[in-house]
This record gives sequence, structure tokens and C-alpha cells, in this order.
Amino acid sequence: MSPGLHTIPARGGMAARVAKDQAVQIVNTHGQQVVDTWAFAADDPVEFMSMEHSRAAFRKAIPEIGDAYVTNRRRPILTIVGDSSPGVHDTLIAACDPHRYEQLGHEGYHENCTENLHAALDALDVKAPETPCPLNLFMNIAILEAGKLDWRPPVSRPGDAISLRAEMDCIVVFSACPMDLLPINGQDGEPTEAHFRVLD
Amino acid sequence: MSPGLHTIPARGGMAARVAKDQAVQIVNTHGQQVVDTWAFAADDPVEFMSMEHSRAAFRKAIPEIGDAYVTNRRRPILTIVGDSSPGVHDTLIAACDPHRYEQLGHEGYHENCTENLHAALDALDVKAPETPCPLNLFMNIAILEAGKLDWRPPVSRPGDAISLRAEMDCIVVFSACPMDLLPINGQDGEPTEAHFRVLD
Repeated sequence: MSPGLHTIPARGGMAARVAKDQAVQIVNTHGQQVVDTWAFAADDPVEFMSMEHSRAAFRKAIPEIGDAYVTNRRRPILTIVGDSSPGVHDTLIAACDPHRYEQLGHEGYHENCTENLHAALDALDVKAPETPCPLNLFMNIAILEAGKLDWRPPVSRPGDAISLRAEMDCIVVFSACPMDLLPINGQDGEPTEAHFRVLD
Repeated sequence: MSPGLHTIPARGGMAARVAKDQAVQIVNTHGQQVVDTWAFAADDPVEFMSMEHSRAAFRKAIPEIGDAYVTNRRRPILTIVGDSSPGVHDTLIAACDPHRYEQLGHEGYHENCTENLHAALDALDVKAPETPCPLNLFMNIAILEAGKLDWRPPVSRPGDAISLRAEMDCIVVFSACPMDLLPINGQDGEPTEAHFRVLD
């Protein structure tokens, strides 16, 4: 991956190879965009970042700076090394998919994070064995009393960024979530582009 | 599956075929046993009960009577139709596996829910495409302030039971969690058997 800023197109996905000890910084360029994020081990994508294993590792629903996401083999893969946003991200909710939009009443094709994941990997000639639960950067799912969940607009601001250090050679995938039927990408329901850079 | 009570052996797993509209009742016989639970579509196990899709469907971290778990294709698969326990179950934490016991300092082989899942399916000549995040019945993972998680003993009592109605023909799998290094199966750390029955 060349240095410099790469665009995650609005409603679209992007994948990048990141070497161990490099960091990837994801920028919420316009401030209200959720970025679904996955990571797969470069030498064997059957091993991937797993939200259910990570929550057991850091004992939190939402991790903080210094916490490491782990794989389905419980090895650290991405550590949060910086976060200029208020730190509100989500580990609980599946990526959107054609079924989701159909159930919300949309007719016809709709871009979705699940297909963005697999298309972005196709571009690198990599095949994911499944669709893991994503790390939903900047997504604001409030955990209320009795475990009730509430879908809310992001609390991040334009230019807020989170940096994740790779603990192994891996392939990271981002999808600028195309959800426009719920206010998860801001009250105006308008998905936007986001950006990322890989740092040595 | 014959009617009557079936034993999920302590530290072991069991799978059963359940027809649409039948219910499966899981009994916490001794009161302090976590039962990891999965469900796969009978005609195509690539479709299975998914915690991350279910949380989006019922908008809760922990569902209640009347809520339906859905599959990774967002179709209802198991609905909670009865629960005589205090209703404390977990949808957040991965099944234990050999890596988990190794990281907790155990040396040598240890029974685990992940291998129990696949062995129980093998007995029915079914192959799971992956290891989905389980529904951890009776498991007490408290969600504290700021999303911090705490591993606690079950609050269920001997004989407490939960009933799940099948919304499609499916294969359900149970593992009586063999964790004995954390007090998740009670303060005495002694995994026990549990039971289930299939009801027309």
C-alpha cells in the first residue's frame, strides 16, 4: 500500500495489506460516517479479527486505547494506539446485507457492507471464509438499561481518526456503510466517503 | 429425537434435530451450569443462528420471552417462548476453545465448547461451515458502566428452564460448558450435566 491518504468511497469498500508493526489510521473525514472494519491474517484468512473473542479478551463491549482486538484463534491482530474521536464504536451489530435493506422496506438493489467486504477482498484475490461480525468504527449503538440497544447518529467530528497497529501481517477491509434508511450515518442519512492511511 | 429428557453430559455436547413449530426446552438441572447453544438450518447449515444479526433484530444485548433469534440470513430460527430462570443469558462471548484454556494457564488437553459443537454435529453427520458465536444460556456476563463486562456465576436455580420454539426445521447443538478455571459455572467451579427435551 502506498503511503498517503486513500479514499474509501461513499457506499463502497477498500482492502489493504498492512505489515506487522505498521498502523492503519481511519479518518472520519466528514464526521458522521460509520466504517465497518475487518482484519484477516495475511498468511491464512481463516484466521480473522473476531468481536466475540475480542470482547472476552479485553472484557469490554467497547474497547479503549491500548486494547487489542484478537482473532478467532485468540491472537492479537489490531491494537488501538490512538483515537481522537470520543471513542464510541460498536462491536455488537452485524454488517448490513441485502436482507437488511429488504426488511427495512427498500426495493431493488442497495449497496451493503457485506458485499463491499467480499468485493474488496476479491480485488486482492483473497477469499474470506465467512462474514465475521465487523468492528463498526464510529457507530453509535447505545447500550441502555437491561441491555437494550439504541441506534444513534455518530458522536464523532470531521477529521476524527482512530489508529490501529497491526500485531501480525494482515489484510484490513473497510466499508463506508451505505445505510441511509436509519440515522446511523448521521441525521441527514447521507453516506459519505472516509479515508485511511498506512503508517510505518 | 425421542420425547423425554435427554442428558447433555457434564463437559460434553449433544445435537438434536428439531422440526418447525416444535420447541426445545433446556433445563439447568443443577442450577449453575452454562449451556452454549447453536442452531443450524436443517436443509443448509450454512444458514445458522447469529448473535450479531439477532441483536440487530431484537435491539437488545439479552433478549426476553417473545423475542426471536435470527439467522445470518435474518430469518427467525428460535423464539423464546418460556423462561423460568431470571432471564440472564449471554450473547456476547465466544465459545471456549483450546486457546482459551492455554491462555488461562491450563496444561494439556481440556474439554471445550468449540470441539463439543463440532463433535456433536459429526454424530449427526453434519458439518458446520464455521463456529458461530453461541447463545450462552444461563451465562452471567454483567454489562457494567462504559460497556465493561464482568464474568459472574449464574443466577439460575436448579430446575430452571428456557423453551425455544423452532421457526424452521433445524439442528440445535448444546454444550455443557467445561470451564472450571473461572467461576462462570458457579463458585465451586464444577461443571455439571444439564438436560433438554423436545416438545411438540
